[in-house]
Amino acid sequence: MMLLGRGLDARDNQTRQMQDAVSNVEKHFGELCQIFAGYVRKTARLRDKADLLVNEIYAYAATETPNLKVGLKNFADEFSRLQDYRQAEVDRLEAKVVEPLKCYGTIVKLKRDDLRATLTAKSREAKQLSQLEKTRQRNPSDLHVIAENELQRATMDATRTTRHLEETIDNFEKQKIRDIKNIFSEFITIEMLFHGKALEIYTAAYQNIQNIDENEDLEISRRMLRKDEEEDEEEDEDDEEDDEEDEFDATKEVR
Amino acid sequence: MMLLGRGLDARDNQTRQMQDAVSNVEKHFGELCQIFAGYVRKTARLRDKADLLVNEIYAYAATETPNLKVGLKNFADEFSRLQDYRQAEVDRLEAKVVEPLKCYGTIVKLKRDDLRATLTAKSREAKQLSQLEKTRQRNPSDLHVIAENELQRATMDATRTTRHLEETIDNFEKQKIRDIKNIFSEFITIEMLFHGKALEIYTAAYQNIQNIDENEDLEISRRMLRKDEEEDEEEDEDDEEDDEEDEFDATKEVR
Repeated sequence: MMLLGRGLDARDNQTRQMQDAVSNVEKHFGELCQIFAGYVRKTARLRDKADLLVNEIYAYAATETPNLKVGLKNFADEFSRLQDYRQAEVDRLEAKVVEPLKCYGTIVKLKRDDLRATLTAKSREAKQLSQLEKTRQRNPSDLHVIAENELQRATMDATRTTRHLEETIDNFEKQKIRDIKNIFSEFITIEMLFHGKALEIYTAAYQNIQNIDENEDLEISRRMLRKDEEEDEEEDEDDEEDDEEDEFDATKEVR
Repeated sequence: MMLLGRGLDARDNQTRQMQDAVSNVEKHFGELCQIFAGYVRKTARLRDKADLLVNEIYAYAATETPNLKVGLKNFADEFSRLQDYRQAEVDRLEAKVVEPLKCYGTIVKLKRDDLRATLTAKSREAKQLSQLEKTRQRNPSDLHVIAENELQRATMDATRTTRHLEETIDNFEKQKIRDIKNIFSEFITIEMLFHGKALEIYTAAYQNIQNIDENEDLEISRRMLRKDEEEDEEEDEDDEEDDEEDEFDATKEVR
């Protein structure tokens, strides 16, 4: 009686502990999955904004003087290239972090079934063992040898099942740690790849901005303004107007 | 007549061109400001998600075996440190990119006033010049000398104003290019600072994950399971139950 009660409580506790462990993993992997998915979504939103920025820089560059135009266009080219890497980051995080975490729900379910089956087998064998024990106690003489043999076989079965249960738990723990290490390593590697590319690209982009020759552009914008005046003059040769009173440009008269 | 008409058209064109240039800058800097602000906001949202991730990793780590617990906690520490740098990135982008672009609205308005004032002065002087010209044509003899002097002075005034106008445009162009170079350089520098820190932090974080000793944790989880059983047994010594039939743990009997 004492032995049986003790065994039952221990098993109950073990079962509860294992089920708690599996539920805990299920819960936290589920939450990690959701938050990582949110992180990926926000990264994609950041890329969207960066794309808008690229387009606006192109649009503005098109209206500017040559050096500024080229500098901004080159910057936008590089910045756009970085967004391709950000897209790759998003795709990789989706495939290597979010998806495996999502799949974990199924893995945990299978593990739980496996555990349950092993526990059922163990309980069935334990019942058999206890019945044999009782039989032996009730018939200590004639059935002794048969019961002893059966008891021995039942004990061996129970030992095998116990070992299988321990292996099942072990495998679950092993796979869990391996998966966590794998998922977090992938996360870090993917992020590092992006940050490394970002550093490389921004280094080039920085030069594009620094190389904008402001003096040359000022010279050009001055020339453009004057050229415009001269063209205007040429046009006016054929197309004179008579508005002499109101507003008047002195520049021409002075030269 | 021909000279006057020509001058007026040229000035109109020049004015239009300058006003277009100022409006163009106003428009594009405004749009850049809005998109950069959006980019900063999305970066802040990404940091929010990362903060949630940090909390969830801490929560999960607390439920795990020692090695996994420490590894995840250390990773979360590093990842949390990275979010501080992301916050610094957000604050700096706000101060050095969005704010200067926002201020540009005021700068452009002042520039426009400056240009308008100069153009008004130029137009007034031009009018004066044209009247003196007319006076000289109507009175070629007696007023000749006085008109000639006044004409000379008016011409000098007009030249000075023209130079001032050219300087105003020049300054506007110069400041614009300088501001663009400055704002984009700041943007790149701030981003690079963050990406550099990210690389540094992820390198440490990667080690935290790689260092998780799965075998030691498996040994510990096995021991914990057995210790639990043993504790259970000890408890049962004082607290026996009588449920012998239903479920039963064979492990103890076997040992």
